[in-house]
Amino acid sequence: MSILVVGSVAFDSLETPSGKRERVLGGAATHFALAASFFTDVRVVGVVGEDFLPEHEAVLTSKGVDTTGIEHVKGKSFHWTGSYMKDLAEAETLATFLNVFADFEPKIPESYLDSEYLFLANIDPVLQLKVRQAMPNAKLVAGDTMNYWIAAHRENLLKVMQELDVLIINGKEVLMLSEETNWVRGAKKILEMGPKSLVVKYAEHGVAGFFSDRMTEKMELCDEPERQIFRAPATPVENVVDPTGAGDSFAGGFYGYIASQGKLTPEVYRTAMFYGSVMGSLAVQKFGTEQLQATTKADVEQRFKELIELSHIRG
Amino acid sequence: MSILVVGSVAFDSLETPSGKRERVLGGAATHFALAASFFTDVRVVGVVGEDFLPEHEAVLTSKGVDTTGIEHVKGKSFHWTGSYMKDLAEAETLATFLNVFADFEPKIPESYLDSEYLFLANIDPVLQLKVRQAMPNAKLVAGDTMNYWIAAHRENLLKVMQELDVLIINGKEVLMLSEETNWVRGAKKILEMGPKSLVVKYAEHGVAGFFSDRMTEKMELCDEPERQIFRAPATPVENVVDPTGAGDSFAGGFYGYIASQGKLTPEVYRTAMFYGSVMGSLAVQKFGTEQLQATTKADVEQRFKELIELSHIRG
Repeated sequence: MSILVVGSVAFDSLETPSGKRERVLGGAATHFALAASFFTDVRVVGVVGEDFLPEHEAVLTSKGVDTTGIEHVKGKSFHWTGSYMKDLAEAETLATFLNVFADFEPKIPESYLDSEYLFLANIDPVLQLKVRQAMPNAKLVAGDTMNYWIAAHRENLLKVMQELDVLIINGKEVLMLSEETNWVRGAKKILEMGPKSLVVKYAEHGVAGFFSDRMTEKMELCDEPERQIFRAPATPVENVVDPTGAGDSFAGGFYGYIASQGKLTPEVYRTAMFYGSVMGSLAVQKFGTEQLQATTKADVEQRFKELIELSHIRG
Repeated sequence: MSILVVGSVAFDSLETPSGKRERVLGGAATHFALAASFFTDVRVVGVVGEDFLPEHEAVLTSKGVDTTGIEHVKGKSFHWTGSYMKDLAEAETLATFLNVFADFEPKIPESYLDSEYLFLANIDPVLQLKVRQAMPNAKLVAGDTMNYWIAAHRENLLKVMQELDVLIINGKEVLMLSEETNWVRGAKKILEMGPKSLVVKYAEHGVAGFFSDRMTEKMELCDEPERQIFRAPATPVENVVDPTGAGDSFAGGFYGYIASQGKLTPEVYRTAMFYGSVMGSLAVQKFGTEQLQATTKADVEQRFKELIELSHIRG
């Protein structure tokens, strides 16, 4: 089953305790697509400038990602400059050059319209909603957002949230969006705000999934007890080189696994949380997309097995 | 199998967003003993003053805890005053009155000498070592410590660590003790400093267990893959009333379960991490010891079952 992802395709200039990199390939859609490509067909909608060369596009196409929907326009690509020198857990933005991304109007190629899985990466919620409306037949819709949209574009964001089967955000964003101080209360409040389920990312502490009754109804239930919360750990990583894109890589692995299964059961959803963690933990081990480019499907399966052994008493 | 725990028996005056309590029963040995009492026989070595009344002792004895080793002396009991108003995740100490605890010299009753499981709660490492030496036949030794001893009594603490089969500390203490910035590297370094295994507490994010080869050799191995790390989640709690004693309650549940099983296999160790999480999550739901006093074994088993469902794909 095909996933359509809409989001940023960008260059990142990065500084971490492990070193510096100038203008490496990045962007939410890039990280998501690479991670999801290990599981299923992925189609990207984004915009890039003249500095986005065939060698950059090849990073995606060599993994089978369909880049027909990456629009090439005059000007420079989105360029983010960030530092993790103070805190590996939180990026400090040094400069953001939106460039061609400032006028991004997602255009969905005809050949993408049959995509059953839609992922709305972190972009203006107005654009997220437009894409969702342009894909009325998508059978599962997931999305991300960030503190900027929560703080300054809340009303638009709330409209997108009505459309989401899965909202994927981090722990701080849960507290900010819900205006709660406890993450469990916060997550439950967010489910009442629209999304049928919620996956909360906690970096090295893994992820937590929250399911509303509306999500349960959407899933093909096996004979199993109802669960409202599920947790998957992260693979412990001794050398975090570059956390950029970890969350998008999680989302790609999570959603890619779901799409690969064809039908969504609670067990598929839970297993997807583990595959997401696998992809996120791989992504941080090198700069930019380097690690996911070098990873094989066998590496992914090996790490999945280790993650089960790490967390299952008799796993 | 019996556990001997040595540590503080105290009164706590607490301020949290849920309210205030004056002089409620507390102390590491108290929380540990109550939690462990759900699984096995527990014997306490500690010291209290004249303000420690029969009604306080009854909190322990009513759960079957043997208090023969709680020495009653002239003066007042250890009294700690703390606030969680700024941050529920970290206690702010307002005042510490050591009182009779300042001159604590642990005395082990004759009837305790056959205890096979020894838990050295957070006290001066010099005392921890003395107790360990007084219990040469203990077949498993676990212990806790805190930032104060790590910073100012490191040399003594390192001697205790040589004696420990299990060191149980929190995530910040791992970084402080190991002088690392990454907790996985930190945990591995701590294993090289002496303890055969390490359990790291991450509050709402559960616990991580690290096993050295020396611990593996100490366990009765079943036919299973070797694991160097294991994680257990915490039960999500919507209303954390009072975090005081959560770590000691974890340790009590963890160690109590291990002692109850008679033999230590890797599966018993992993299961114990889940039971520890259960007891820690119960403890925070009311002030002081209130919740553990009101809990039944059926409550414990129910929450254990929920924690398995929360974390096991096919649990």
